[in-house]
Amino acid sequence: MTSNPYFEWLGDRLRVVDQTRLPLEITMVDLISVAEVIDAIKVLMVRGAPAIGAAGGYAVVLGLRAAEARDASEALENLNEIANRVSAARPTAVALTVAVEQVQAAAAHGRSPAEIIERAEEAANEFVRTDHAACEAIARVGSELLSNATRFLTHCNAGRVATTANGTALGILYALHDGGTPIEVFASESRPLLQGGRLTSWELRNAGINVKVIPDGAGASLLASESIDAVVVGADRIAMNGDTANKIGTLAHAVSAARFGVPFHVAAPMSTIDPTAASGDDIEIEMRDPDELFSVGGVAVADAQGDGWNPAFDVTPGDLITAIITDRGIAKPPFETSLKRFVQQEQEGVARA
Amino acid sequence: MTSNPYFEWLGDRLRVVDQTRLPLEITMVDLISVAEVIDAIKVLMVRGAPAIGAAGGYAVVLGLRAAEARDASEALENLNEIANRVSAARPTAVALTVAVEQVQAAAAHGRSPAEIIERAEEAANEFVRTDHAACEAIARVGSELLSNATRFLTHCNAGRVATTANGTALGILYALHDGGTPIEVFASESRPLLQGGRLTSWELRNAGINVKVIPDGAGASLLASESIDAVVVGADRIAMNGDTANKIGTLAHAVSAARFGVPFHVAAPMSTIDPTAASGDDIEIEMRDPDELFSVGGVAVADAQGDGWNPAFDVTPGDLITAIITDRGIAKPPFETSLKRFVQQEQEGVARA
Repeated sequence: MTSNPYFEWLGDRLRVVDQTRLPLEITMVDLISVAEVIDAIKVLMVRGAPAIGAAGGYAVVLGLRAAEARDASEALENLNEIANRVSAARPTAVALTVAVEQVQAAAAHGRSPAEIIERAEEAANEFVRTDHAACEAIARVGSELLSNATRFLTHCNAGRVATTANGTALGILYALHDGGTPIEVFASESRPLLQGGRLTSWELRNAGINVKVIPDGAGASLLASESIDAVVVGADRIAMNGDTANKIGTLAHAVSAARFGVPFHVAAPMSTIDPTAASGDDIEIEMRDPDELFSVGGVAVADAQGDGWNPAFDVTPGDLITAIITDRGIAKPPFETSLKRFVQQEQEGVARA
Repeated sequence: MTSNPYFEWLGDRLRVVDQTRLPLEITMVDLISVAEVIDAIKVLMVRGAPAIGAAGGYAVVLGLRAAEARDASEALENLNEIANRVSAARPTAVALTVAVEQVQAAAAHGRSPAEIIERAEEAANEFVRTDHAACEAIARVGSELLSNATRFLTHCNAGRVATTANGTALGILYALHDGGTPIEVFASESRPLLQGGRLTSWELRNAGINVKVIPDGAGASLLASESIDAVVVGADRIAMNGDTANKIGTLAHAVSAARFGVPFHVAAPMSTIDPTAASGDDIEIEMRDPDELFSVGGVAVADAQGDGWNPAFDVTPGDLITAIITDRGIAKPPFETSLKRFVQQEQEGVARA
């Protein structure tokens, strides 16, 4: 397993880096209750679809331990109640629901409170193991696909702090860099919460990768300049026709990439693909408080008496996407066919890419 | 003349609102020298193509006064030296060069230092009068063109603080609002310097207009939602084929508007159209310090040891523009023909729209 110092399960607590303080402070926080994990997810202390999923799984374990059920029946009641609360923390990243359901399903077979907790913990660990394997597979197949590319645009953060391993979109870039390709990465800052400026630029630079932050609005100009070989982003939820929910601002890059002839790639584990969503219309987009637009680190940056519109994600239509790089291989259009095959393999337990 | 409290020539000084402090503080600053005006333009205390032009014109007057030339010959030498310095303050907004050249040409006919100064001041005043008339004409023809639209997206700030009157793009919105149309405006915040969040939202709300700030990256999603009737933006320089330089982020909105079928309008005075630029390739794009991406109001918002790419403007190809709304009327594609006619009228002194 690739190690990740920013996400660590210690048996009775989940130790995570507080992503809201990066890169100014590297603060590790111990989350010891369901409420603390839910709050950490809501405020984006823990963020990134795979990381949210993993945290959600461990939240269920923490909740079951704290409840101290007297018997299996009471423990299973607790399990359902906790799972519902955790799943509702944020609506768009399907990995949260997937992880919680996996933990819930595994635990439901337990015959005593202790066994229910044990099975829940084992399922949460298994979600993390799967995430590690998925990141590795995505990095491998993605770096093969993009072996001739050197200049990239990425948005938000789909890297080490967004997963429990090396990342999805950024995992591919790490693999290229580690393989000796002299890559250059442009990271759009991703207002309002600046995951590109704060997280992507920081983690890539720490890895020795040449990275430049750009304002989100500069993506189109960069793509028009013919200096970018590929856009690579992560995803929060992918519908069966390839429509992809990802951080607000992704769609603008996708539309510009199509206009200026730059390939647009989505890198995401199978836990991001939602078999119940036929298209982007079936994906709930989280609306966040407009106050996120009005101040940065306590400094007012807009008319404080004003109003705002602050969706956390947008949906990029599948027809703007060149390929979806998953741990089951590269899905190409038509996604209705390619994603369907991968999902069937997943359900049948076929080995990964 | 429409009055504007934020830009006032007092004969021996130029009084402007410090736009870097808006909307948190309404601070009026008196600029009394060439160096002060140039600095104010460079740091965006004064910004917006028409306002920069007007300030540049008065900077020449201030410089001539301070030089106290002994004779006409020395005054004309000073004139050229000052004009060159002022024109170089920022490269992209052609109005600065236009205004300075108008002042320079008028003053060159003076036969004494006093007369040179007098003619310079009269030309600077004339640039402002023309700007007022242009804003009024743009508001009139633009609000007729968009009389059936109620929901708008705009970018950056092309309003009261960007001109010496009511604005260009926002002037149209003021006219619609004043005419009783219940308009709703989405203002993309315009990172890195947040002219949309700080200035547009503030001035529209002050006028009683329903305005919402959005992250720049949310423009595409908003345009995809089919809830926007038109995009209206200003311009810093327009080439003869319609290619338009405007605040970084404009191009992304234009590409998205085209993709999702929303009309995209540019509103700009004739002083913005550059007869010497055949296409966008002839427009110099100002590159600004990446540090603007790394902190906001003194608060670090990105990896401070990192690098960035920070162009102040992008160029929207003319083929993405539905119409260019000028003080000589509405220019429609093919812009090679329509803009050429307007420029000829301008050179021949034909009356405005």
